[in-house]
Amino acid sequence: MIDVAALARRDTFARGLGIELVEASLGRAVTRVTLEERHLNFNGVGHGGLTFTLADAAFGYACNSQGVVSGSIDAHMIYSMAARSGDVLTATAVEISRSSKASNYRIDVVRADGKLVAAMTGTALISGKPVVV
Amino acid sequence: MIDVAALARRDTFARGLGIELVEASLGRAVTRVTLEERHLNFNGVGHGGLTFTLADAAFGYACNSQGVVSGSIDAHMIYSMAARSGDVLTATAVEISRSSKASNYRIDVVRADGKLVAAMTGTALISGKPVVV
Amino acid sequence: MIDVAALARRDTFARGLGIELVEASLGRAVTRVTLEERHLNFNGVGHGGLTFTLADAAFGYACNSQGVVSGSIDAHMIYSMAARSGDVLTATAVEISRSSKASNYRIDVVRADGKLVAAMTGTALISGKPVVV
Amino acid sequence: MIDVAALARRDTFARGLGIELVEASLGRAVTRVTLEERHLNFNGVGHGGLTFTLADAAFGYACNSQGVVSGSIDAHMIYSMAARSGDVLTATAVEISRSSKASNYRIDVVRADGKLVAAMTGTALISGKPVVV
Repeated sequence: MIDVAALARRDTFARGLGIELVEASLGRAVTRVTLEERHLNFNGVGHGGLTFTLADAAFGYACNSQGVVSGSIDAHMIYSMAARSGDVLTATAVEISRSSKASNYRIDVVRADGKLVAAMTGTALISGKPVVV
Repeated sequence: MIDVAALARRDTFARGLGIELVEASLGRAVTRVTLEERHLNFNGVGHGGLTFTLADAAFGYACNSQGVVSGSIDAHMIYSMAARSGDVLTATAVEISRSSKASNYRIDVVRADGKLVAAMTGTALISGKPVVV
Repeated sequence: MIDVAALARRDTFARGLGIELVEASLGRAVTRVTLEERHLNFNGVGHGGLTFTLADAAFGYACNSQGVVSGSIDAHMIYSMAARSGDVLTATAVEISRSSKASNYRIDVVRADGKLVAAMTGTALISGKPVVV
Repeated sequence: MIDVAALARRDTFARGLGIELVEASLGRAVTRVTLEERHLNFNGVGHGGLTFTLADAAFGYACNSQGVVSGSIDAHMIYSMAARSGDVLTATAVEISRSSKASNYRIDVVRADGKLVAAMTGTALISGKPVVV
């Protein structure tokens, strides 16, 4: 497995939003963020784009953990509950299938009390190039 | 139609990312962002979460333009091309259907040269409450 | 819980395709089909529409099991492997979240050897009307 | 362009459901079905699996029209309106993007009066093999 923490350190966008890598193993990654005022939308709740980015970061770390550059080509997300300022959200990405060309991941986003906030399914295309960290 | 610009002004997350509202009409909204270094992922291209947020913002402004609070419950995005630092991305959300309970939108994200970068489909639940701006 | 088997018996389309209800409990349902020649597409493998219908049937039985009429408004499916004539496919739908207005389900489709063939996520709108069986 | 009509003739599943190819051009295809009793679900309206299959067939003909075997890896569908027995549904698939590895399509399903019944977005992986018809 590659050094996923090194990958996360150069993920400028996710880091700038306060998203951190909690742990990673082969085909699996966990990210976390604490909702701040800057993450809210016009209704005063967590912006869907922040929740998506949290899940997408976990997805990206998990699918590149295998050491071959993989890029998302498709992501679907359902939102089951609004997140609020102060909430700690955790996203866990797990691989559900893999071929030589593509891989599929499911990413659950939960609150600290375990309630499901959002659920993503993502597909990544696998290039032939090694991930350089 | 409500004052969509006022809605966009209090969209803290989107504004903080440099996403601006370009125009809005009933059931339609256009947003724009210029990709900066802070928007990039670990591969040095635009983060999928930024592209998603740009489209999601257009979707949110368009579905709330009708004056009734509407919240996204589902979004699907395909990515057709990586965006690069300096690219100007524009997202256009249009309503494709509407019932008393839910509405559906398609949101295209294009580069300045018109090339499609990503395409979203979103579903919003319509509450009975008026949007207060 | 309502009589889900009675619901399945009047699901003309699914029954006509050879899709059967295996079991159901509150918020959960399992369907099964054996792939026949009539289920194949122009490449000679299982048609995506058949796999989708198998999963959609499980989803429909599971979300209506609660006794309130629920209708699918959105479904996303990834295909991880082609199914072949003779394969026995099983779809298991489980509820992952529920509010007063909508519910979300994940539906996995697997072969007899446990390999994942497809994975669906679905959203249903909950009406106020009781399911009559 | 390959002979798409020949492709459609050997699409056993779609043909068995009464789905016909109306027209095809490079990267575009139109399919049609008239809803019969056998297409209905347990609520007495058109089964989501039938609408999906209609759209999926148009998608499959359109993406293979280019002459290279392409297989769906992901499909997302929103349902905006129930279809009823006797309704004539038409699905139109158009390519919205294409790389050497994958292509994306949007497929709209409408009633004879032009009302949108469902809208699909699909992604196909492009193999290196020619379509043989």
